[in-house]
Amino acid sequence: MNNRPLIFITNDDGIHAPGIKYLAGIASQFGDVIVGAPDTPQSGKSSALTVNAPLEVNTHPSVDGIQYYSITGTPVDCVKVAMHAILDRKPDILLSGINHGSNAAVNNIYSGTMGATMEGCLLGIPSIGFSLLDHSMKADFQPLGQFVSDIISRVLASGLPQDICLNVNFPAGCTPEGVKVVRAARGHWSEEYADYATPHGKPFYWLTGTFINEEPDNSDTDEYWLARNYGTIVPIRPDQTAGDKINDIKAIID
Amino acid sequence: MNNRPLIFITNDDGIHAPGIKYLAGIASQFGDVIVGAPDTPQSGKSSALTVNAPLEVNTHPSVDGIQYYSITGTPVDCVKVAMHAILDRKPDILLSGINHGSNAAVNNIYSGTMGATMEGCLLGIPSIGFSLLDHSMKADFQPLGQFVSDIISRVLASGLPQDICLNVNFPAGCTPEGVKVVRAARGHWSEEYADYATPHGKPFYWLTGTFINEEPDNSDTDEYWLARNYGTIVPIRPDQTAGDKINDIKAIID
Repeated sequence: MNNRPLIFITNDDGIHAPGIKYLAGIASQFGDVIVGAPDTPQSGKSSALTVNAPLEVNTHPSVDGIQYYSITGTPVDCVKVAMHAILDRKPDILLSGINHGSNAAVNNIYSGTMGATMEGCLLGIPSIGFSLLDHSMKADFQPLGQFVSDIISRVLASGLPQDICLNVNFPAGCTPEGVKVVRAARGHWSEEYADYATPHGKPFYWLTGTFINEEPDNSDTDEYWLARNYGTIVPIRPDQTAGDKINDIKAIID
Repeated sequence: MNNRPLIFITNDDGIHAPGIKYLAGIASQFGDVIVGAPDTPQSGKSSALTVNAPLEVNTHPSVDGIQYYSITGTPVDCVKVAMHAILDRKPDILLSGINHGSNAAVNNIYSGTMGATMEGCLLGIPSIGFSLLDHSMKADFQPLGQFVSDIISRVLASGLPQDICLNVNFPAGCTPEGVKVVRAARGHWSEEYADYATPHGKPFYWLTGTFINEEPDNSDTDEYWLARNYGTIVPIRPDQTAGDKINDIKAIID
C-alpha cells in the first residue's frame, strides 16, 4: 500500500512554464505528484472562475513518474476540476507556482498563483504559493531549490493553521540570504496604462505601471526583505472580513 | 462651480444589467454619476485584470444626466481604466453593483463586483459593493432602494476606515427587515460540477455546486441574517495578510 503524501501542483503561467516543472521535480522527493495546470498562461486571473463555459481536462505524458494534466480554465478552475475529475482523494498538500514574477505585497490579490493557493486553503488543504521575482521564461530557479524543499518538508510535517495558506516570494538573480515570515507591504500600482491609438485614431490602453510602496523605509514587510535578497513568507487568510472594524462600521451605519 | 460629490459606478454583470441602472438612479440624488462598466458579463472574475490584451473605452448615450461608458475588460480593469482615461479626478465614492446574485460569505473572493470594490479601496476611494440574492435579470430592486440610499448617504458623510470597503448583500423577494453589520460566514462550495460528454465521448464539466455553510446554526454572520430577511454589511480588508499568524508560521518554518 502506498502511503506517500499526495501532492497536487498547479500554477498560473500554464503547464508549459519552466517554474511548474522545477517545482514538480522538487516535490517528487516528498510524495506522489500530480500536476493539473492551465493549458494557457493565466497571469493576473486572481480567484476568477469559469461560470459560463465548459471545462476540459487533457492528459499529457508522465515525466519521471509525475502525472501531468492541463485544464482549459483559470488556476481556481484547475483546483476545483482536479478535485472533481483528476484526484481520487484530497491531496496532502497543494503547491502553486513557481510563478515567473512577484506576488508580493498587493499582488496577492491579483495573482492566479495565489488564487489557486487560496482555493486549496478553502478546501482544507495545506497550500503554498511560490513566486520568483523574475518574469523571464528563462528565469533561474536553481538558487531557490533548498529553500523550496525546506518549506514543503516543514509544512508536510507540521501542517498549517486552519484557514491559512502561504505566499512565498524569492528575490531574482541570487541565492537568498534566508527566509523571513512577514506581513505584506501596503501599497498600490500607479501610472497603470500605456496609451495607444488604432490606425483609425481610436485610443486604447495596455496595462503597465509602477508599484508604489506606501510603507516607511524600515518596515518589516515582504517588499523590504525581498529588496535585501531574502525570501519572504506571508501567512494569507482568504477570508477578507475585517472583524476588528465591525463596530466602526456599525457606528457609521446605525 | 460644481461641488457635488463625484460618484463612480461599476459592476460585473455588464453595462446592460438592470442592477447597475437602478444603482445609478439612486446615486444620482447624491452627486454627479459616471458609470464605467464591462461591455460583457464578467461574473466570477474576482480581482482579475487584463495583462496581455489592449482595453478600449466606448461612450454610450447619457440618461438623466448620468454618463455611461463601457470597457472591454474585467471589473478591476474598469476601475483602473476609468481612473486613467475617464475620470478627471478621484471620485468621492465608488459603488459596484447592484449585483444579480449573492456575494455573501466566501463568494467575496470570487466576485467581480467585490473585485472592483476592493480595487477602489486600494486606490483610497470609499467603496461599496451591493448585491441582491436573485440571479434573475428581472430581479426586483425596488424593496432595497431606501437601504441602498441610506448606506450611500452615511458613507458619503462619514467616509470609511482606511483600507476597508463594504460588501453589502440583500435578501431576495422581500423588503429587508433591517441591516446587520456582521462577519462573513465560514464555508465552501461542494458538488461543484455537472458532468457531460461531447458527441465524441470526451468528458467535460460545467460549474454548478452547493454552498456549504460551516458555521454553527446561530452564528452572527451574513448567511444567518440573510436567511432571516435582513440585509448584511461585511467590512472587507483587501490585504489578506494574517498578521495574527506570523508567529505560528515562524514556529513551523524556522
